[in-house]
Amino acid sequence: MQLTLEAIARQIGGELHGDGATIIRGAATLADAQPGDLSLADDPRRATDVGRSAASAVITPPGFTPEGLPSIQVANVHEAFAAAVCLFRPPRARRRVGVSPQAIVSPSAVIAPEADIYPGAVIGDDVMIGPGCVIHSGACLMAGCKLGRDVTVFPNAVLYEDTVVGDRVLIHAGAVLGAYGFGYKTVDGRHMLSAQLGYVKIENDVDIGAGTTVDRGAYGPTVIGQGTKIDNQVMVGHNCRVGQHNILCAQVGIAGSTSSGRYVVMAGQAGVRDHVHIGDMAMIGPQAGVKDSLPGHARYLGSPARPERENALLWSSLAKLPELRKQVRALVKEVEELRLKKAA
Amino acid sequence: MQLTLEAIARQIGGELHGDGATIIRGAATLADAQPGDLSLADDPRRATDVGRSAASAVITPPGFTPEGLPSIQVANVHEAFAAAVCLFRPPRARRRVGVSPQAIVSPSAVIAPEADIYPGAVIGDDVMIGPGCVIHSGACLMAGCKLGRDVTVFPNAVLYEDTVVGDRVLIHAGAVLGAYGFGYKTVDGRHMLSAQLGYVKIENDVDIGAGTTVDRGAYGPTVIGQGTKIDNQVMVGHNCRVGQHNILCAQVGIAGSTSSGRYVVMAGQAGVRDHVHIGDMAMIGPQAGVKDSLPGHARYLGSPARPERENALLWSSLAKLPELRKQVRALVKEVEELRLKKAA
Amino acid sequence: MQLTLEAIARQIGGELHGDGATIIRGAATLADAQPGDLSLADDPRRATDVGRSAASAVITPPGFTPEGLPSIQVANVHEAFAAAVCLFRPPRARRRVGVSPQAIVSPSAVIAPEADIYPGAVIGDDVMIGPGCVIHSGACLMAGCKLGRDVTVFPNAVLYEDTVVGDRVLIHAGAVLGAYGFGYKTVDGRHMLSAQLGYVKIENDVDIGAGTTVDRGAYGPTVIGQGTKIDNQVMVGHNCRVGQHNILCAQVGIAGSTSSGRYVVMAGQAGVRDHVHIGDMAMIGPQAGVKDSLPGHARYLGSPARPERENALLWSSLAKLPELRKQVRALVKEVEELRLKKAA
Repeated sequence: MQLTLEAIARQIGGELHGDGATIIRGAATLADAQPGDLSLADDPRRATDVGRSAASAVITPPGFTPEGLPSIQVANVHEAFAAAVCLFRPPRARRRVGVSPQAIVSPSAVIAPEADIYPGAVIGDDVMIGPGCVIHSGACLMAGCKLGRDVTVFPNAVLYEDTVVGDRVLIHAGAVLGAYGFGYKTVDGRHMLSAQLGYVKIENDVDIGAGTTVDRGAYGPTVIGQGTKIDNQVMVGHNCRVGQHNILCAQVGIAGSTSSGRYVVMAGQAGVRDHVHIGDMAMIGPQAGVKDSLPGHARYLGSPARPERENALLWSSLAKLPELRKQVRALVKEVEELRLKKAA
Repeated sequence: MQLTLEAIARQIGGELHGDGATIIRGAATLADAQPGDLSLADDPRRATDVGRSAASAVITPPGFTPEGLPSIQVANVHEAFAAAVCLFRPPRARRRVGVSPQAIVSPSAVIAPEADIYPGAVIGDDVMIGPGCVIHSGACLMAGCKLGRDVTVFPNAVLYEDTVVGDRVLIHAGAVLGAYGFGYKTVDGRHMLSAQLGYVKIENDVDIGAGTTVDRGAYGPTVIGQGTKIDNQVMVGHNCRVGQHNILCAQVGIAGSTSSGRYVVMAGQAGVRDHVHIGDMAMIGPQAGVKDSLPGHARYLGSPARPERENALLWSSLAKLPELRKQVRALVKEVEELRLKKAA
Repeated sequence: MQLTLEAIARQIGGELHGDGATIIRGAATLADAQPGDLSLADDPRRATDVGRSAASAVITPPGFTPEGLPSIQVANVHEAFAAAVCLFRPPRARRRVGVSPQAIVSPSAVIAPEADIYPGAVIGDDVMIGPGCVIHSGACLMAGCKLGRDVTVFPNAVLYEDTVVGDRVLIHAGAVLGAYGFGYKTVDGRHMLSAQLGYVKIENDVDIGAGTTVDRGAYGPTVIGQGTKIDNQVMVGHNCRVGQHNILCAQVGIAGSTSSGRYVVMAGQAGVRDHVHIGDMAMIGPQAGVKDSLPGHARYLGSPARPERENALLWSSLAKLPELRKQVRALVKEVEELRLKKAA
């Protein structure tokens, strides 16, 4: 397939600069682009990258006209480029499958007629699935799960008994919601598992990454708040209350009974201990280790985590430590000399 | 459903304080409780939380009589509360399914008649499954696995060939036992995989968390000792010997050929290098990084991990570093002055 | 089964030292060996371990003749021992299953006749599978995936749409390739998911560990370079370009759009931020936190990661910090005395 740059400019609603007759055969990022490809540069600071790229044309923001290359200027570069990519590689149409006869579905499950249950998916007793839901192959919804509208459960994700999921939730492959909380009481040298009578509740518009695990509450719910986005391989312990619109990056771990406010961000591999609260809009840095409750509207770094500025001071002091030792050695010598002269 | 507080006190064997005619319609933790709910407070220090809760009654330990609220006093608050929760939300009865005709079972597998194999579970050649085992949907037991009695394998867990599992073991969803050990020898610039002739052995009364991985030994077993409890997303490398009654919290990583004694505890996100030994009763702190063998009966913190006290000293010294620099600057100035006067 | 040591020496092509009539009934590592077992000691420094072992004979390198125990000396001890293990515990023969009638296979998939698709595996629309591939039970290849020759996909691994896999690739259980990249734009307080139009490309001779996740690119591929080996529970973000022959140990996390050169090694639990480059042959230490691009041919430790030597200096300065504080206290006192005498 091929299109003129002019035709593309028209379709994505951008302003053409340079030769509109340029033939475009694909769309790729600057690093990947081959001759014949349309690319994107979302910032004039990427001019050098544009110069190095083999792309035949670029989509740019208004006012950024790279030298020696035709461009299409649009307000939203990424949206326009995504549209261009779809011209050359149209996304797969969602195929309606209904309830596949190869799915394993309990007779007591209630499934909206507009839902798709793929072959090999497992739907337990009393499960309720709303309209627009897609349950992929190998996903397992154990007894009593309740899903709202337009929820997608990717292959091999597992929802333990009585998991409650709102609307427009994405649950990626291999995620596990509702496994037992890690609570033990040691009696006569044996670790006895605590009560597992709670469940997991995922509110509306939440994304759950691949391989992420959220444990069930002891007596009530472990909650992921509305609009919160969770990356891959994140661990949320039992009884946690993750607030609304949080961003939890990959490999974050949150121990039991901890809660967070609104718009909290936790960077990759950060860890938070049990039974603490992270305030609204707090940002926890990568690999940070939180061992106390933290006020909101602030950034925290390091393990143990401290306010960003305090952490920066500590590290700059550290960097000067060898110099400091040199100074002290010199002082010891000078003072010794002064004392000797005195004594003389 | 509703019960009087008196009826509940009788059923859970507790001592009623206050109005026994109080009507109870549910059970929830203090934070979640609504009017009509019974809650719990396991310590008199939680009196303020009780005051703030909307609960209509609480279960408390003997001698803790919260003001203005009827209570039931019992020795084991958590056990009694769990019983109360079950009155209002009875747990699902375990449904016997036997060997589901929708399971995929090798003709050479030997399955005790009292085991349940759910639809979509996969049982390989020569697998042996003891009485009371429950193999959930999508779980896959590859050829030669041997399970004792009362083992539960949750959905989509995978046991590679020849995994040996004792009695009363829980293996949560998405756990993987027996994948290849990460050992390579680089020959002519190519990484060649080492021998994978061993297997994984899980002793009695072990719990394995969701998404946890235990790799097979090179020639013999990787062992998880009796009574050890492993949280979600833990990694245990090939040839490891995890001792008895250990507690490994979420996202812990243990590299190959490392061993631990009895009652070792590793907190969340701790890492231990290969070929070391952690002594009995050692406690490794959160995010700690262990790079040497460690004696038992001690606590270790930090990365690299050091004894707790040493680590505390180091951090308190660090905290005073900016002040130390100030002192040294002042000293330099004073000594300079002294020298000038001397010279004068 | 039992063999004489002489017979084993002949079969594995080694030089017999000591009593060739010794009866051998099994093969185990020094720690595990029982009387009647053949063991291995790959280094003369392991002589003490040999002395303590219950083994009846050992395989050793040329010139290492342990006292009081017959031995077989060979150039490649591990290869010879692996062969000996296989004599006593022959590996399971690979059973050809073809396309199992219990697999779920789209009619539009193209599967080479020499491939094995196990019962319960799921093969989506337009998937292409080359000769020698083995797709285990519960593995799910979504629409448009393309696999070369001799690829093994272990149980319950998931390949999202359009994943491209080269030849001789191992994908372990529970791995997830191609889940959505974690990119959001916050509009009016809501996190909006970025474009997910790319895919994952795994080059030849790559191993992917259990539970590892590699996210799809935004517009183009996320690439794992030829010969790279990835351990369990590793996270590779969207748009990353992992170079050739890298070694990524367990629980490593690499954020989006980061790239690495050839022969890079990342130790366990290391983290690398987004949009940086790690040069050829760089070694990133365990739990290191990389926040900038790093030149190759060097070792880096710590969080934040610094060159090995710099990191060592910092930690040795730190260790002397309490002593330094003592010195400064003494100096303050001496200078005070000097000043007083002066004033007197």
